[in-house]
Amino acid sequence: MKIVQKYGGSSVGDIEKIKIVADKAVKQKKAGNEVVIVVSAMGKTTDSLFSLAKQINTAPPTRELDLLLSTGEIVSVALLCMAIENLGYKAIGLPGFLAGIYTDTVHTKAKIKKIDPKKILEEIANDKIVVIAGFQGISAEDNITTLGRGGSDLTAIAIAGAIGADRCEIYTDVEGVFTTDPRIVPDAKTIPLISYEEMLEMASTGAKVMQARAVEIARKYKIPFIVKSTFSERGGTMVKEMKLEEGAIVTSVTLDENQAKITFFHVPDKPGIAAQIFGELGKEHINIDIIVQNVSKENYTDLSFTVASSDMERAIKISKKEGKKLGATNIICDDNIAKITIIGLGMANHPGVAARMFKSLAQENVNIEMISTSEIKISCVIKKNQGKKALKAIHDEFFK
Amino acid sequence: MKIVQKYGGSSVGDIEKIKIVADKAVKQKKAGNEVVIVVSAMGKTTDSLFSLAKQINTAPPTRELDLLLSTGEIVSVALLCMAIENLGYKAIGLPGFLAGIYTDTVHTKAKIKKIDPKKILEEIANDKIVVIAGFQGISAEDNITTLGRGGSDLTAIAIAGAIGADRCEIYTDVEGVFTTDPRIVPDAKTIPLISYEEMLEMASTGAKVMQARAVEIARKYKIPFIVKSTFSERGGTMVKEMKLEEGAIVTSVTLDENQAKITFFHVPDKPGIAAQIFGELGKEHINIDIIVQNVSKENYTDLSFTVASSDMERAIKISKKEGKKLGATNIICDDNIAKITIIGLGMANHPGVAARMFKSLAQENVNIEMISTSEIKISCVIKKNQGKKALKAIHDEFFK
Repeated sequence: MKIVQKYGGSSVGDIEKIKIVADKAVKQKKAGNEVVIVVSAMGKTTDSLFSLAKQINTAPPTRELDLLLSTGEIVSVALLCMAIENLGYKAIGLPGFLAGIYTDTVHTKAKIKKIDPKKILEEIANDKIVVIAGFQGISAEDNITTLGRGGSDLTAIAIAGAIGADRCEIYTDVEGVFTTDPRIVPDAKTIPLISYEEMLEMASTGAKVMQARAVEIARKYKIPFIVKSTFSERGGTMVKEMKLEEGAIVTSVTLDENQAKITFFHVPDKPGIAAQIFGELGKEHINIDIIVQNVSKENYTDLSFTVASSDMERAIKISKKEGKKLGATNIICDDNIAKITIIGLGMANHPGVAARMFKSLAQENVNIEMISTSEIKISCVIKKNQGKKALKAIHDEFFK
Repeated sequence: MKIVQKYGGSSVGDIEKIKIVADKAVKQKKAGNEVVIVVSAMGKTTDSLFSLAKQINTAPPTRELDLLLSTGEIVSVALLCMAIENLGYKAIGLPGFLAGIYTDTVHTKAKIKKIDPKKILEEIANDKIVVIAGFQGISAEDNITTLGRGGSDLTAIAIAGAIGADRCEIYTDVEGVFTTDPRIVPDAKTIPLISYEEMLEMASTGAKVMQARAVEIARKYKIPFIVKSTFSERGGTMVKEMKLEEGAIVTSVTLDENQAKITFFHVPDKPGIAAQIFGELGKEHINIDIIVQNVSKENYTDLSFTVASSDMERAIKISKKEGKKLGATNIICDDNIAKITIIGLGMANHPGVAARMFKSLAQENVNIEMISTSEIKISCVIKKNQGKKALKAIHDEFFK
């Protein structure tokens, strides 16, 4: 069996942990499998390198920043190979450019254009455990690039696809994907099985499990993968293609406290208004999440939407400018909000899920300010200080 | 003018020093020159990485060790580029493999086979300051290699040759090459001009200025270079091709305290004896330095030679074995010795230099145990505890 394993920074945080990872890799090799490992930089290495760069140049050139950051993963690769060889097995370490990972030229958040798996397959055939630096590649101009946050997951999944792996395992410091944030709800359980779509919804609704980009690649190329703990045999979440009817009614509940709501009061209710506002925000790369428009009154309406807290200042500035042009009577902003979301592939086939969610909120005296739904999720915007209470109540409703 | 500058680990030891190096590079660029910089890893980075490796695997595989060590220089390269761009100049950082530095496959002490300067020259033509990682290259099998101790000097000199540089500057933390070790003899002066041959003798007689390999390449391809301080405008030593008659009588005095003397008593004085002893030592890669054979007495003789202290134990073992075969009455070893050497291209044309050296030693009551001479040097083996005193006396004789 061809297995790709990915280990994050916390899994290779020190010498002892690297030895544990070597043990795990060798165990699979011993069992007769072909093993490819993708690793991140040790612990907080990437942050330290970034901070060094900032001390020299507050706006470091991105090409050189990528060159700098790429060294972190290479250190992990070399050390892990040494640990594997110490156990009597052959290993070969490959930086991204030697592993055939070709990207576009967008430094610090490059996209993988192509993986040429020739070298990887050759070394597998040489009976070696192949250890590859995550998060990095090389552009057509022969520049080292990095893939941005969560890039090592992306590397692992893309390589699994390129070499036709039978299994792709994403190792991390938690026991898989949880039904909700276990730091807030200690009752949270690991989810044994989840679809790509649900994982994508989780990523975009505040769960810090995996970056959406890695999941999107997995979905696009139908590469199943499992998320599990490096240091425990318990749990583990399989992520794969599933049909709506195979899914659970509710898979998870997420809470996103980094949201802000902007409301335009009294704007003309005519075509093109929304396009104008959101067009201007889009030009500034501000993502809009939930949009709600009130019922029209005398050809005027109120319009609310949410953005990430980090985009709030810029969004207000643009909104005020646009509001003036549109004759809005007032623009207000509220970042004292939270977004709570239930996600489930099966909810489409099971009426009454929304009602159960709203009832849970009502029982806790939580007022709903905005509602947004899709086929596999329901999001409610509520007051921020009620977020954690609401999360517990909804989790209890569906998982107790 | 095309200028290659090389900065060692102590010159890029921290952020502030990297900024100083950036200033120096930009100054040359501003003056209208084409500038290529070669850098080492920051401060003690290479040692730290090596120690990490040793913690994981006491005999780390050399291919992976090279991959690991190569990251140190890449970090320096990226940070220096950022510092240069911060000053408003364009820079491009190149790891060895992108700079076209091709080596053989002898990991941890690879030899440069070829430099393809295409990329370097292209980027110079793009008006960029080109910053290259010293100490590393890539083998024909696409493996990252390192060049061993002093490898960055080698990189700089080889690149200067490959691009036809007008000047090659080796920056370090001292003000050039000294007439002797200034920690022992505070009167030591910097040498303004020295030949390749004298530099090679200095390297092989205990002066820790530059590795012989880098000087050999410079001599082979007739690449003149200057050794100077990163942090001071004083001093500076030009190293170039010189005729015997252009040289100083004595350029420098060196002291090597890491020597041991082995003596074979009463071995047959017939052909092939020396070849047998030194043949066996050579097989074990033990370098012999000075050899002295006494006048024969009744067809028997005594034979003494020196080796590096670090080779002593192995040398004794082999010597005892060979001594037995040859019927030597005794083998003794003495590591309480030091080798003191005067070096000067001009001494061949000036009789009486040896006499001045011996007289200086005699005046200090220093007994000479062995003498060895070549066209441009005279070495004496003396007692180790008299080494520093002897060094001062001889330096006074020739430089006061």
